This record gives sequence, C-alpha cells and structure tokens, in this order.
Amino acid sequence: MDQNKHGGNGELIGADSITLTPVGFVESPLKAPTLKADGKDLTQRRALHRAENQAVSHLIINPEFSPLLYGIEEFSHILVIYWPHLLPSKARATQKVHPAGFRELPLTGVFASLSPARPNPLLATVVELLGREDNRLEVRGLEAVDQTPILDIKPYSKHYLYRENFRHAAWMDQLEEMLSET
Amino acid sequence: MDQNKHGGNGELIGADSITLTPVGFVESPLKAPTLKADGKDLTQRRALHRAENQAVSHLIINPEFSPLLYGIEEFSHILVIYWPHLLPSKARATQKVHPAGFRELPLTGVFASLSPARPNPLLATVVELLGREDNRLEVRGLEAVDQTPILDIKPYSKHYLYRENFRHAAWMDQLEEMLSET
Repeated sequence: MDQNKHGGNGELIGADSITLTPVGFVESPLKAPTLKADGKDLTQRRALHRAENQAVSHLIINPEFSPLLYGIEEFSHILVIYWPHLLPSKARATQKVHPAGFRELPLTGVFASLSPARPNPLLATVVELLGREDNRLEVRGLEAVDQTPILDIKPYSKHYLYRENFRHAAWMDQLEEMLSET
Repeated sequence: MDQNKHGGNGELIGADSITLTPVGFVESPLKAPTLKADGKDLTQRRALHRAENQAVSHLIINPEFSPLLYGIEEFSHILVIYWPHLLPSKARATQKVHPAGFRELPLTGVFASLSPARPNPLLATVVELLGREDNRLEVRGLEAVDQTPILDIKPYSKHYLYRENFRHAAWMDQLEEMLSET
C-alpha cells in the first residue's frame, strides 16, 4: 500500500511542532455532546446511541480541497478523523476513565478506551458514504456534533483498518450490550 | 459508546489552534520510507510489502503516559495514529496521487487515497498487539519507520472501526493484487 511511500527533497514536516488545520466541518442533527452525567438513565442512553448510529450528517469540505475528494465515491465507507472542539482543555490530562461514563464498567486507561478525553483528542470513526455533491459528503453513523472540525478523510481500507478474529476487553462487549435495545 | 461523551466546564479545546504533542515513538526494523521512485521493480515492492506486514515493532510510550495504557492488553488489536515526520513539508499541498506511486493506477484525490501526502498527515493503522512491558507495546504490521512519533493509541473497536460488506475502488483491489506474492 502507500503510507510512508514518499520521496522528494527539501524541508521535512518533522515532529517539533505538529500543527493541524481543519479541512472542513460537520453538519449534523446532533447538536450537543452527551454528558456523562446523563449516563444514569439507560433508556435515554440507548435512544441516543441509536440516534447516533442512524444519524445522517454532511461533511462540508473547504472548496479549496474539493480536488482531493476525486474518486472517493467509489468507496462505500470512509474513515473520518475529527477534532472534538467542545472538549474541555483540562480533559487532555485525563489518565483513566469509566468507559462511556458508566461507573459499573472498570476504570480503564484512556489509550485502552475510546474516550475523547486523551492527550491528542483525535477521534476516528468509519462511516457509510451515502453520496457526494461537489464538496459535500453525505454519511451515516457519525456521532460528531454539528460544527465539529474535520481533520482528515480516508477510504476504508481492508489493509489498514479491517481485521477479523479480534478480541475485545470484556467491558466493551458489556457496553455494547448495555446500549443495545434488542 | 463514548466519543463525544464529555462534560465539565471551563476552557474548551476549540479549533483555532490545533497543536499536538507526540505521546511516544516507534522502534522499528524499518529504517527508511519507501521512495516512489523505487516503484518500478515489482519484485522489490512485493518483498517490502511483506516485510512491512510482518514487521515486529515497539511503541515506546513516554513514561508519564504509562497509566493511560492500563487495560490495553485485553485487546488483540489497536489503532495507532502516527505522524510521518520524514514527509517533505511541501507534500501537504498534494491534491492527487497515483496510489502507492504506481502510474498504472488512476490519479486519485488524496482523501480517496492512503497517501501520507495530505493536508493533515495523520496516518492510521490497525496492528496486532503482541505484548506489553510497562510502557513498551510490541506490535506486528506497522509500516511506520524507526523513530516515528506516535500521536494516539486506541483499542480496535467493532463499533467505530469494523465494517463488513464494504466496497473498495477497483484500484485498491488491483494494488493489493499487484503487491501480493501468492
């Protein structure tokens, strides 16, 4: 495949100062992040989980980047990397969390969790690509709230992202079951 | 699940200035990025592809972040987000590429490709987690070169990353076939 396949001379991006600029933003029916404090009402959490899974959002890419989307409609799914701009700054110092704010789930290191509270809050989700109109992508299943900045978009790649026979921590299966309505 | 599930008051991370700091770095037997100019020798490219798939690397996490790894060994696979520090700065302005540098593959927008040359060069790969010793994770299948800065680590999540019945662009299947040795 082609990550790391780069040549050329001149200045390198290095690692001393890693600065990113949004390439677009999300238009979503989801208007506010879920607060952990709401976690006590399971019925409500399940309804929200369903709403997030089914939400149809639009990724509005800055027009200057439109050429970078060329060919994306040939993929059924894409990986969206986004920046949870409503996260409190101090959350970047979090070390351990109860997954999804459920205190009955074990305290877990943030690198072993999907919490947005992490040193570099880069959130990554594979979504279904429903369609494209110029610089607007219609997707399903993105839980980013309205106006979330988008950092990158990649095609869903079997080589880099699809794995079979993976093993989850028990709490993740438990969480999935808690949030399931069936 | 729990992305976007954050509460609290105070300053938000916002989107005006997105600055990241590496949380660790890669120790790898892969010492140099593949140059596109090497792409003409398919035998060599196939051997390199195999070496990358089978490479056993170590993720050396800064000791201050060791508590954030708590519980990660309960997962068989993790997503590594890393920064290709040897990328030329000017590559961030790339609009279209021939995937993996093969001119016989169609010119493709970088958001529809896995090229590291993109506005925000955040590379994301799911790797097999072979073991952990304190702040050292042993993984298989990471094509990042030695000393690559690591930005984030997440567990491989069925909810966020696993999809069945996905459709690739034809060129991606063609590339996989070109690089396959069987």
